[in-house]
Amino acid sequence: MSGQNNEGKLIVNGIPVDEADKQRFIEAAGGVPVEFCGTPENFGDMKVKAQIPEELRGKATAVIGNFDPSLAPQFTSLEWLQTWSAGVDAYIAPGVLPASVKVTSATGAYGQSVAEHMIAMMWALMKNLPRYVRNETTHRWHDEGTVVSPEGATALVVGTGDIGSHFARLAKAAGMRTMGVRRNASQPVEGVDEMHGFDELDALLPSANVVAMSLPRAADTHHMFDAHKLGLLGSEAIVINGGRGDAIDLDALHDVLAAGAIRGAGLDVFETEPLPEASPLWDDVNCLITPHVAGGDHLAGNTGRIIDIALANIRRYVAGEPLVDNAHR
Amino acid sequence: MSGQNNEGKLIVNGIPVDEADKQRFIEAAGGVPVEFCGTPENFGDMKVKAQIPEELRGKATAVIGNFDPSLAPQFTSLEWLQTWSAGVDAYIAPGVLPASVKVTSATGAYGQSVAEHMIAMMWALMKNLPRYVRNETTHRWHDEGTVVSPEGATALVVGTGDIGSHFARLAKAAGMRTMGVRRNASQPVEGVDEMHGFDELDALLPSANVVAMSLPRAADTHHMFDAHKLGLLGSEAIVINGGRGDAIDLDALHDVLAAGAIRGAGLDVFETEPLPEASPLWDDVNCLITPHVAGGDHLAGNTGRIIDIALANIRRYVAGEPLVDNAHR
Repeated sequence: MSGQNNEGKLIVNGIPVDEADKQRFIEAAGGVPVEFCGTPENFGDMKVKAQIPEELRGKATAVIGNFDPSLAPQFTSLEWLQTWSAGVDAYIAPGVLPASVKVTSATGAYGQSVAEHMIAMMWALMKNLPRYVRNETTHRWHDEGTVVSPEGATALVVGTGDIGSHFARLAKAAGMRTMGVRRNASQPVEGVDEMHGFDELDALLPSANVVAMSLPRAADTHHMFDAHKLGLLGSEAIVINGGRGDAIDLDALHDVLAAGAIRGAGLDVFETEPLPEASPLWDDVNCLITPHVAGGDHLAGNTGRIIDIALANIRRYVAGEPLVDNAHR
Repeated sequence: MSGQNNEGKLIVNGIPVDEADKQRFIEAAGGVPVEFCGTPENFGDMKVKAQIPEELRGKATAVIGNFDPSLAPQFTSLEWLQTWSAGVDAYIAPGVLPASVKVTSATGAYGQSVAEHMIAMMWALMKNLPRYVRNETTHRWHDEGTVVSPEGATALVVGTGDIGSHFARLAKAAGMRTMGVRRNASQPVEGVDEMHGFDELDALLPSANVVAMSLPRAADTHHMFDAHKLGLLGSEAIVINGGRGDAIDLDALHDVLAAGAIRGAGLDVFETEPLPEASPLWDDVNCLITPHVAGGDHLAGNTGRIIDIALANIRRYVAGEPLVDNAHR
């Protein structure tokens, strides 16, 4: 394989690492030089970019970390980019990097973190907690009415990758029945009782107590949840989105929330981020909004998982083996 | 047994029931007359009292439902009161009812409901959701920092009755290790990995990530969690109280919350209810406050469980068998 000849290869790592992890990178690279330029200030948030020194940009054949995509033309020797994000849209968009550059994501590093955030949102909406917090701000002691339980309820997991599978396992542990929807319904997914294809979604929505969305961004998932699909949900349904913001038509969602046609929504991702201050969703008392914080470095352990993904691919890179991206499954 | 002679007995039921449940009550009473006076308006909330018609008060030998304790002297024939609440303090207080009147509670009807509310509070505080809801009220897109996970964390369940056991099972299902504390530590409790006595509480608190309190009210649990005990908690600890409000010294709790000495608190019960508008807890951003709504009729199914408890005791009452109260264990 071509990778066997590592002449001229240079790995530039933008993840901040301690001495022990530095040694793991050097060992994984097996003689291929590794430059370390990660600092805690330039890591951890999806908005923050890896700072790759100018003099290394033209020499780097492999980069670990999300550099500013507008600088892509300077990376003239690049063969491989390993992002620290699960999403790679900004790098695989046409005209950013040559088609010959392999881009691999950190999908798999955030499953636990994002799924737990989604479960927390689900529980909060089941028990009216967002409304009670709003009442706290006015010191108001007021009963917000009936609640619902996960016990015996149905979770419809839309997108059953790492996040969806982890969510399904947590939902089952809380007593729910889990149904999964994805393109390839023939493959079983851990935690999911029943798998279905996307073509069955309309038939499944009326019986879903919770719709947990962790879809990748793709042309055919844009506004997948529109007024029609949202209209199929029951009056106690809860919609949670921890995947891609554009999978829900937010105007349509506001309409069903304002009409009380569903129980509530928990959103960590939005078509436009930050969510514009003028969005009516901010004032929907049954809409729980978090500012794209379910993943990132918010949960201790995420960084370790990103490093493990990067190290595994570095070993493959220097051995000339195919690089792995868990998003492609 | 004396119960065999049912001459003169009259059961008055204050729980609103449909025709099918009415038949179940009549069958359970086995010939003893049953009067039904429950209406939905006079049921469901701990503040609402059963309305027993004046002409029945002197004749009723058994009452199902929480009548106004100030009317107790009018119930001159009463042998047995089955409350629809888990707590019976208002009826067993000295001078309310003669000592000969047996009072049984609906302990057991609320375990799932209260435990789920406590778990929802735990998840919300782990993921900073109360702070995000407050930010929603000002349309503020702001990262509230790191989160914690139940995975591998330790839940210390203080009071391991029906609520505590149900909480422990949910906590274990979310990946937690569970420790239980109660008077009699020798008896195992479902969902609890390790049982300890109250004398070990100080030693256990520093390693507790979550303290889940569902204590009965009793003299020796008043302000059990004072400044000393709260001071033993770690900086990421979460305290949840779904049991009795006076088990926590709320001034001391406000102090540790204001100092950032613990991660947060979730309270559904308070020493004084409603929580006074002037309480500083309302403005503690890491204090999640709900107005004693974890039980009651907020979760569908609670009423059915109360009815089942009442029916089982009615059968024992007319058979002259000892009445059962799950609180006594």
